[in-house]
Amino acid sequence: MKRVAYPAAIQALVGELKRLPGIGPRSAERIALWMLQSRDARPLEVSRVIREVHESVRACPRCGFFTTEALCEICSDPARDAAQICVVEQATEILPLERTGVFRGRYHALGGRISPLDHVGPEDLRIEALVERIKAESPSEIILALGSDVEGEATANYLATLLRELPVAVTRLAQGLPAGGGLEHADELTLSRALAGRTAMKS
Amino acid sequence: MKRVAYPAAIQALVGELKRLPGIGPRSAERIALWMLQSRDARPLEVSRVIREVHESVRACPRCGFFTTEALCEICSDPARDAAQICVVEQATEILPLERTGVFRGRYHALGGRISPLDHVGPEDLRIEALVERIKAESPSEIILALGSDVEGEATANYLATLLRELPVAVTRLAQGLPAGGGLEHADELTLSRALAGRTAMKS
Repeated sequence: MKRVAYPAAIQALVGELKRLPGIGPRSAERIALWMLQSRDARPLEVSRVIREVHESVRACPRCGFFTTEALCEICSDPARDAAQICVVEQATEILPLERTGVFRGRYHALGGRISPLDHVGPEDLRIEALVERIKAESPSEIILALGSDVEGEATANYLATLLRELPVAVTRLAQGLPAGGGLEHADELTLSRALAGRTAMKS
Repeated sequence: MKRVAYPAAIQALVGELKRLPGIGPRSAERIALWMLQSRDARPLEVSRVIREVHESVRACPRCGFFTTEALCEICSDPARDAAQICVVEQATEILPLERTGVFRGRYHALGGRISPLDHVGPEDLRIEALVERIKAESPSEIILALGSDVEGEATANYLATLLRELPVAVTRLAQGLPAGGGLEHADELTLSRALAGRTAMKS
């Protein structure tokens, strides 16, 4: 007996949904069947907004954040401090930093980090654009908010060396114990960096 | 300072993804950002297949299974036994039954089950269509493959009473211990039904 299967269109849908991050085969089938059974226009709305995002959202040409305008919300806000540029690997890291509420400057997303194993070199990142921005906008400080893993460190070191000749201070995020983390949960590298970066409470 | 947010199109996408079954707010944001960052046409492909399924897939007018043709794969297969019709609540339950490989007949999806609390009565289900099918196709057996919960039982009882006058046998799925389940995991109702439905091993 021939094995019964869903029509090809449904199988294609399950196949595409399965590739989304965090969606396994069972979730994909569940979502596809939900779409089949929903009587309203909700699945069409999902389809429409995916297309709309794809067509209307682009990277801000200055900082790399997401925008549908000529410049993003942050770059076009005159209240933001142009003296500080916070350098991140990905544009998706800008909102988490914004949510802290403590940074009033602007951003620059590199679009990745230097990683020879992944064939990503400095020329593949928006480093040239960062240098141009520094020359054009004359910020007083570049804050490197890069990951504390090997590739993040390598990228930070590369940038620090590169920017040495420019009249701008280069800082990086502090490394140490994460908030709420006891010493027993910290690995040796975190502990050694927390020790090396210790700050005075009373002098 | 004004709170920075993603452009409205991205927020709309996160909002839609969040409504999908099994997708929470964090997963929705993760998928949306993945779509933003993917450089290929994959998100557009997701959008396209959702639309295609919505436009091309419909319920088989005879049994309710999914199809893009006039009749579904099962109803149009002359090798399937027309003498048995297996009644299920939802079309999505047909493939799981098919995967058992033990049923060679055809199906009839009711589109739900009788549930006064949800304002679903017999007239909201494809019960009239089932009666018409029985008159037209003259099957010898109707197998009620409905849930063993209160609504499934109520629906099964309603159908058994309704079909009493028609020249067709009405059976239901066996109730008892699930495969691989020890007695210590079975609830009292399952045990009492397993006892009541005990079968002879030697007579």
